[in-house]
Amino acid sequence: MEFNFFMPVRIVAGDNCVKKNAHLFAAFGRRALVVTGKSSARNGALEDVVWAFNQNGQQYEVYDAVPQNPTVACVEEGARLARGMRADFVVAIGGGSPMDAAKAVAMLARQGSDGSIFTREISADVLPMIHIPTTAGTGSEVTPYAILNNDEKQTKTSISAPSLFPKIAFLDAKYTAGLPLPVTVNTAIDAISHAVEGMLSVRAGELSDAVARESLGHLFSAYGALRGGELTHADRCELLYGAALAGVVIANTGTTPVHGMGYCLTYFHGVPHGRANGLLLPAFLRVCARKDPARTARVFAALGMDADAFADKLAALLGSRECYADATLRDYARRAAANKNIKNCAVPMEEADLYEVFKASVGA
Amino acid sequence: MEFNFFMPVRIVAGDNCVKKNAHLFAAFGRRALVVTGKSSARNGALEDVVWAFNQNGQQYEVYDAVPQNPTVACVEEGARLARGMRADFVVAIGGGSPMDAAKAVAMLARQGSDGSIFTREISADVLPMIHIPTTAGTGSEVTPYAILNNDEKQTKTSISAPSLFPKIAFLDAKYTAGLPLPVTVNTAIDAISHAVEGMLSVRAGELSDAVARESLGHLFSAYGALRGGELTHADRCELLYGAALAGVVIANTGTTPVHGMGYCLTYFHGVPHGRANGLLLPAFLRVCARKDPARTARVFAALGMDADAFADKLAALLGSRECYADATLRDYARRAAANKNIKNCAVPMEEADLYEVFKASVGA
Repeated sequence: MEFNFFMPVRIVAGDNCVKKNAHLFAAFGRRALVVTGKSSARNGALEDVVWAFNQNGQQYEVYDAVPQNPTVACVEEGARLARGMRADFVVAIGGGSPMDAAKAVAMLARQGSDGSIFTREISADVLPMIHIPTTAGTGSEVTPYAILNNDEKQTKTSISAPSLFPKIAFLDAKYTAGLPLPVTVNTAIDAISHAVEGMLSVRAGELSDAVARESLGHLFSAYGALRGGELTHADRCELLYGAALAGVVIANTGTTPVHGMGYCLTYFHGVPHGRANGLLLPAFLRVCARKDPARTARVFAALGMDADAFADKLAALLGSRECYADATLRDYARRAAANKNIKNCAVPMEEADLYEVFKASVGA
Repeated sequence: MEFNFFMPVRIVAGDNCVKKNAHLFAAFGRRALVVTGKSSARNGALEDVVWAFNQNGQQYEVYDAVPQNPTVACVEEGARLARGMRADFVVAIGGGSPMDAAKAVAMLARQGSDGSIFTREISADVLPMIHIPTTAGTGSEVTPYAILNNDEKQTKTSISAPSLFPKIAFLDAKYTAGLPLPVTVNTAIDAISHAVEGMLSVRAGELSDAVARESLGHLFSAYGALRGGELTHADRCELLYGAALAGVVIANTGTTPVHGMGYCLTYFHGVPHGRANGLLLPAFLRVCARKDPARTARVFAALGMDADAFADKLAALLGSRECYADATLRDYARRAAANKNIKNCAVPMEEADLYEVFKASVGA
């Protein structure tokens, strides 16, 4: 037994939990900046949040220009808005992009935008945040991570600090009801990847493993619905809850090379983040199983299936695969090998291993 | 899915975790008050903490006069010491009594002792705390509760506020190695009671239930060792971890009438707290099963046994029972029915039910 576990986010879950708990917003101050995306704001969540603000007599502005993969320019713009309105707190509504962007906005609003976002020390002085996921995947609502496009390094780079944990995460599956099926599938795969990768982290421990097992149970309970393309509210609750638990896992463990590799497919080809992980995960697990059978067996036990069954299940969700030329994959293996989450993997991974995973997963 | 889950304590677990993580103490300031009991300080924990202070160049004083069931006078004395030395933080070392007392000390040191400890509003202004359990039972290291003798009301009364959560809990089972067997057994039963009662709370939810199931798995994995009276270090790790998880449960759910009833046996007869709960728990579960079979069946599923098997297992640990006269038990049922944790039970309990539980458990 050796671990260090921290999860300071209050999780408030349930149907209509935002309106039922409107009083919880009141403690954070008089003026809120809502950070969201153009489509994220169209699922009822913004209306519920505004209802809560009105109940509490709170003022707000909405910054809804967060793009799919948030840029430094976008979070700097959000921070200018927050400073301009003297926001007391930030409310994030959306999938991973708005929720991650909101963390950077809340930080830059207090610590200033000087172009050093990827290299600076992040202090504790961050606007308090309330996060409301409208996809079931990222887990950003319970992590201290914000992942932004890093154009200088041509990848996605995460910033992280204990002060980037939101204060509250509201989980209401109704906000995910209108998602297109591919988004539902890709984000669910992202969550599966989080739980699996967390169990393979050098920082994995008894408690994060227990949360990962619980997470995978809930995520796979909706597998049939994901496969069939018809999700009930109960299915969506399972996915949203399972994704939040997977977020609790990576908040404590970080991710592994799967994420580092996936960023290449997302950055250069626009492959959705969860899909990118799902394409790579089965082959990654096979390499792990070869190099560290005992550790990887624990992952398959948590999944309740073997390597073949897991690969088949993901393949059925992913459909036809993207394929890339050999030289491209060698380049991506080199890039991914430089990512810091390589060192976070309890199974040591070389560039050659990453190439093998790329080749088996998305080789031409 | 409807719940509100909050667990802001960083849990650092493992062999020699205090010394390995001495740097974590440094963030809390220059002067620490250590709150402990006469025997709690004799298991190596105080030496490790002092080693950490010395590493960090921190000053400290030790208040080791916390009695078995802490009194208001004792926590007021501790608060005077903390103010006198201008303590920046409090380190609690011990079982439930020193850990609970430390919370009251940390609060009173900042908010003043005016005799209103059981009725005042507790603000956020509390000295930060680091808790180091030396028994595996109370879970106080991860809860916002402090339970003190309330002589005016002739019972034990809990004070509670989000600011009473410790900042860090260090779990090292070596500190529990020298405990007398009855203390190990009684505290383990207390933890079992926490996990079970948490599942029967009106505030129980998916996540607290999941933690309760995990907790019971670890606690009962050491059952054979508890029964046989020979515990390995691995057994003690299981108990310490299981007890902390059970603490996470009650931090979110509170306790039920079992605790309210048990306080009578502790306050008037000195029955150890965990033992008092264990004497009452099986009969309490039988009443619950009669009134709400579906909910109670989930508890037995989590325990992996039925009502009879659970009663037998506890009976084997408890040995010969205390017995009290009928009039005494009627009085205790009346007292327990007035305790606030009655309303916290998802299975409605009347005074007659409590009497039935007392009679079946410790009737003459």
